Amino acid sequence: MQSQLRKDLLDAFTKADGAYLSGQHIAELIGCSRTAVWKHIGELRKEGFELEAVRRKGYRIVKTPEKITADELRLGLTTKFIGKNLHYEETVDSTQKIAHRLAYDDAPEGTVIIAEEQVSGRGRMARRWHSPKYTGIWMSIILRPNISLPKAPQLTLLTAVAIVQAIEELTGLLPEIKWPNDILIKGKKVTGILTELEAESDRINSIIIGIGINVNQTKEDFPSDLEQIATSLLLEKGETVSRADLIKGIFTNLEKLYLLYLEEGFLPIKLLWESYAISIGKKITARTLTQSIIGKALGITDDGVLMIEDDHGKIHHVYSADIEL
Amino acid sequence: MQSQLRKDLLDAFTKADGAYLSGQHIAELIGCSRTAVWKHIGELRKEGFELEAVRRKGYRIVKTPEKITADELRLGLTTKFIGKNLHYEETVDSTQKIAHRLAYDDAPEGTVIIAEEQVSGRGRMARRWHSPKYTGIWMSIILRPNISLPKAPQLTLLTAVAIVQAIEELTGLLPEIKWPNDILIKGKKVTGILTELEAESDRINSIIIGIGINVNQTKEDFPSDLEQIATSLLLEKGETVSRADLIKGIFTNLEKLYLLYLEEGFLPIKLLWESYAISIGKKITARTLTQSIIGKALGITDDGVLMIEDDHGKIHHVYSADIEL
Repeated sequence: MQSQLRKDLLDAFTKADGAYLSGQHIAELIGCSRTAVWKHIGELRKEGFELEAVRRKGYRIVKTPEKITADELRLGLTTKFIGKNLHYEETVDSTQKIAHRLAYDDAPEGTVIIAEEQVSGRGRMARRWHSPKYTGIWMSIILRPNISLPKAPQLTLLTAVAIVQAIEELTGLLPEIKWPNDILIKGKKVTGILTELEAESDRINSIIIGIGINVNQTKEDFPSDLEQIATSLLLEKGETVSRADLIKGIFTNLEKLYLLYLEEGFLPIKLLWESYAISIGKKITARTLTQSIIGKALGITDDGVLMIEDDHGKIHHVYSADIEL
Repeated sequence: MQSQLRKDLLDAFTKADGAYLSGQHIAELIGCSRTAVWKHIGELRKEGFELEAVRRKGYRIVKTPEKITADELRLGLTTKFIGKNLHYEETVDSTQKIAHRLAYDDAPEGTVIIAEEQVSGRGRMARRWHSPKYTGIWMSIILRPNISLPKAPQLTLLTAVAIVQAIEELTGLLPEIKWPNDILIKGKKVTGILTELEAESDRINSIIIGIGINVNQTKEDFPSDLEQIATSLLLEKGETVSRADLIKGIFTNLEKLYLLYLEEGFLPIKLLWESYAISIGKKITARTLTQSIIGKALGITDDGVLMIEDDHGKIHHVYSADIEL
């Protein structure tokens, strides 16, 4: 959409002040065909505008996109380092990719990259992550803990706790954690966490935590293959949730837990994590790259490794897997 | 230097056919001041030309820059994957940085980035690596082994063996390895290796091996602070060494050792490594981030970790350190 046409179209809606504008009237006002009007209305919807269309009356804007601004995120943020160096982007390939580049270029610890939309967002194992515009939280956080490489997955668990706490505080909803990196509400996925790292030989240079949260998606926003397995905070709560407030809540909780972790190690995090974990004590199937293990999830080790006891009483240590409950 | 002036200058030297050209004569030929001629001669030297300057006679070009071409590298290369996807650059920040980006963007295993010059080449622990134009080999190689994170440092040792073998085969020189990542000739550093990795939680996505080799530097090419501790193959051999041939030798040896490693594990590599290692059996000082350990270097473990026995008979495992002999 050319910017002048968009400006004219938005001006027309502004002047209408909530009244309906017919397609024909809009076409005359901005000087284009009715087909073009229909196309431009579609563009606005894609950008987060909610438009009501009523037969014989026309269109009106019901809601403008709830776009986050970097200023809104900075206002009232009380963290010491997480989110202090904030990169806010409209559209990106993936926030993880940008974060990797910034991390390699010595971006300070706590640097955050937030995008309104990812065109090729990635989940674990290079799976596609659906991240449409203005509806969710798609962000990456750079941490630089002085820990050994095998401890890196602990940061996934720590981040999950921070997000569960932030969602609970803001919405009253009670999310649960599915090992290792999913957060569910009533069995449907609301959040995924992807922990990546850059290291020099045996020394961690940066840990890059990717977070995807479905916040204000409606049922129609989910592709049909995700409808049964994914949900949003809006759908569970029945009202829109402020993404800016949730982001700030995550920063605050994450920084608190991270400092605790650096000070006291993984144990206090582990106890919190277990209190939110859905799979512990249940019979699960864990699919690793090489095998499927069926058994009872006993818990996680002090290193964050999942322990499963199979029917023969043998205990398996699972470092990475997909879990089915 | 403007390209027309450079062309005129090179034309003048071409016509002189090895004879001396006085500064005054050059100035007249290309239509500029003698000061400008002096500056342009300096530029040519920076770009790898060797110019002889004789009082009352003038300048002549003794040697053109030995610039590598990607075609030259591809010709006669018999590897299956290392070097098959080759990026050749004139000047880069650092080949590691480019390799990180390519690796994150799913570049195939064996992808190599070679640059004639790095303006901010890095060594271990973010130390500066001096990498002037047309004289050395500055390159990064992307590998994607299916190994656990703590094994990554083994690739440093494996690469060191491949480079020592390639230097020995091409020049007859006998380089030695100083744990973990330096290759020395007669006690002076000729090669550094920097192994970095990208991982998703506990799964390696890519290992990026940075290699810097001093090949055809003269004494004058080393900054004064490196003169006593660094050398080049030219200085040790007494003649220039073909960088293209050495690169191809490294690709061939690296691929052979890497396939052996994937097939049989670290043990065969360890035995080769020990046969080239300078520090084993000697009294050394190992400076880690937190302490200095003085003792006898016993060897490396099956995981590539250095073992040092101190004066009290206590054995220390050193994962990362600077070693003094």
